[in-house]
Amino acid sequence: MAEYTVTPWEVSGKIDYEKLVKEFGTKPLTDSLVKRIEKQAGKSHLFLRRKIFFSHRDLDLVLDGFDKGQKFALYTGRGPSGHTHIGHLVPWLFTKYLQDAFNVELYFQLTDDEKFFVKDLTPEQTRDFAYENALDIIACGFDPKKTHIFLDTEYAKTLYGIASRVARKTTFSTARAVFGFSNETNLGLIFFPALQAAPCFLPSVLKGKNIPVLIPAAIDQDPYWRGIAREAAPKLGYPKPAQIHNTFLPGLGEGGKMSASDPRTAIYTTDDEKAVDKKVGNAFTGGQPNVAMQREKGGNPDICPVMHYFHFLFEEDDKKVEEQIQLCRSGKLLCGEHKKMLAEKVNAFLKKHRQKREKAKKQIEKFMLRD
Amino acid sequence: MAEYTVTPWEVSGKIDYEKLVKEFGTKPLTDSLVKRIEKQAGKSHLFLRRKIFFSHRDLDLVLDGFDKGQKFALYTGRGPSGHTHIGHLVPWLFTKYLQDAFNVELYFQLTDDEKFFVKDLTPEQTRDFAYENALDIIACGFDPKKTHIFLDTEYAKTLYGIASRVARKTTFSTARAVFGFSNETNLGLIFFPALQAAPCFLPSVLKGKNIPVLIPAAIDQDPYWRGIAREAAPKLGYPKPAQIHNTFLPGLGEGGKMSASDPRTAIYTTDDEKAVDKKVGNAFTGGQPNVAMQREKGGNPDICPVMHYFHFLFEEDDKKVEEQIQLCRSGKLLCGEHKKMLAEKVNAFLKKHRQKREKAKKQIEKFMLRD
Repeated sequence: MAEYTVTPWEVSGKIDYEKLVKEFGTKPLTDSLVKRIEKQAGKSHLFLRRKIFFSHRDLDLVLDGFDKGQKFALYTGRGPSGHTHIGHLVPWLFTKYLQDAFNVELYFQLTDDEKFFVKDLTPEQTRDFAYENALDIIACGFDPKKTHIFLDTEYAKTLYGIASRVARKTTFSTARAVFGFSNETNLGLIFFPALQAAPCFLPSVLKGKNIPVLIPAAIDQDPYWRGIAREAAPKLGYPKPAQIHNTFLPGLGEGGKMSASDPRTAIYTTDDEKAVDKKVGNAFTGGQPNVAMQREKGGNPDICPVMHYFHFLFEEDDKKVEEQIQLCRSGKLLCGEHKKMLAEKVNAFLKKHRQKREKAKKQIEKFMLRD
Repeated sequence: MAEYTVTPWEVSGKIDYEKLVKEFGTKPLTDSLVKRIEKQAGKSHLFLRRKIFFSHRDLDLVLDGFDKGQKFALYTGRGPSGHTHIGHLVPWLFTKYLQDAFNVELYFQLTDDEKFFVKDLTPEQTRDFAYENALDIIACGFDPKKTHIFLDTEYAKTLYGIASRVARKTTFSTARAVFGFSNETNLGLIFFPALQAAPCFLPSVLKGKNIPVLIPAAIDQDPYWRGIAREAAPKLGYPKPAQIHNTFLPGLGEGGKMSASDPRTAIYTTDDEKAVDKKVGNAFTGGQPNVAMQREKGGNPDICPVMHYFHFLFEEDDKKVEEQIQLCRSGKLLCGEHKKMLAEKVNAFLKKHRQKREKAKKQIEKFMLRD
């Protein structure tokens, strides 16, 4: 039995990311690649320092091209099946860092069709979630002049034209091998990989010349690029899309990634202070059953979501992260204290985010890409 | 071995239309239904008198509804894989008769995507053929205020939204059973049945209330409606589309329908007089090997495309058709004479058609449905 599952529709179990790099056939993100990005950005990023982005395909080629004057475009996306949680922000915040570093265009796909195909949601519901999610995307601080957000159903005129070219070059057996389609799979979901591949070639179509594309995204989305887009690219005369992959932000429960379908263990950007206090307060930790044992034996930060959150997002200072780990292991830091520290950090972050999200309501049309 | 094949992608052999009605599970077009249409039209139509339209699904329900004040919409289409030939005009001219009779809206789909999925044609080529075909459609005399022509790739924003709802309700196994998809079928073609079904529900979507749809089309298209659209309709809360089916205009060769892929036996609307004279002159006939034998034994009009053409399209007067049949059988009419008569009729028809087609170039935007 597999210890973990990583597919576009299911992520579960204790993921061995090193093994995943081998299984998926990607390459580890080396220190030298990290340095090339940081040099261009003029600053480091904790997602790079802490190997939250850990794997890539052809990133080296994109950087080589950039050094020779070949601008690339960024492409990422979101399946709008619910409200945004802080796990979703990980690739978005990194994409913002990359946009600033390389001063490039970003194409942001909201796959409202996909979520209608796979979930028990109406097209109206996935559309509404898409616009809610768009506010969180904009709140990440992207450049409105260089950022183009679109919903599949609303941008279908342009997307269907490109997707149909991809679809023409993709057989059912290829798609089935990549995604495990069955007889019961609906026709929408079978066609969808072509639609998710389409934005890989959208910059080239819109600009009328070949533009390489770099996709920052969680690694579960890799099959789309590996199995469909990268196969179709040479047949259509476009560059193969490059990728840079992140690990998953864990949920607040024991193991597993943060999932929008479990509201108790996911922190949504729309959660108020009280909700955050409660969710963090109820979080699983690596702590001992009681204070006395914690003081004596110390906690286990390796399995603790509270610690992971500081590491992932909420403590920029590497030394302070290290300090917390030591304090936890030594029993000096109690889980209750640590949770309180985290709730404060999360609430401070979300307060700012919500302000930016509120402002985004007036900016949204500046970002939307229309046919 | 099957004596004939009738699928959306292949029509061949000697078709037994009575058997086809049973196989497809449609109903024969009865005299009483014909009378109801003719009464509404205020005039007869040779396509009805001569049973060129011969089969239907739920036409009675559509007429019942109309009698009670429920307007329906017409929907038909064309796969733009080449120039229009006169066989294509059969359902279109009948659709024009129905539009006049019932004073209803017509939605005309040009499936430029489908032809790119199945033929060795580029998207640009199928798009260009679609616009060429649109000129022939308009030349049939449709009411510009009530006729809406669209290309799948250009009207994709609206169509994809509807098609995705159909696709959500259609499993791969259903579509494979209807269309015989294989592992090598491309993803575009697998999704396409949902796109061809979409216009069945387009009038309801555009008008914001349920509008029944009647589809006049050759019977090879029936699997789309039977297998996909009529299955999805109740699940989506729309009326099942009704159909009225025509037989195929034969080609000028021995047996088989007129096919755009065989230019020697197909008469295109763009053929000039010389080309028509040559093609008709080279046509297969039911005649004897030489004049003496023809005079003695007479010809066989049943297998003669020349006779079929008068019967199908080029002789409005039933008595004259009967006369020609008798003259042929008796040996009084020679094939050469008959061909000359036909070429004159065809050229007279095409001369007028080309004039209307030329005018259509200025009218086209009045007819095009845009997102």
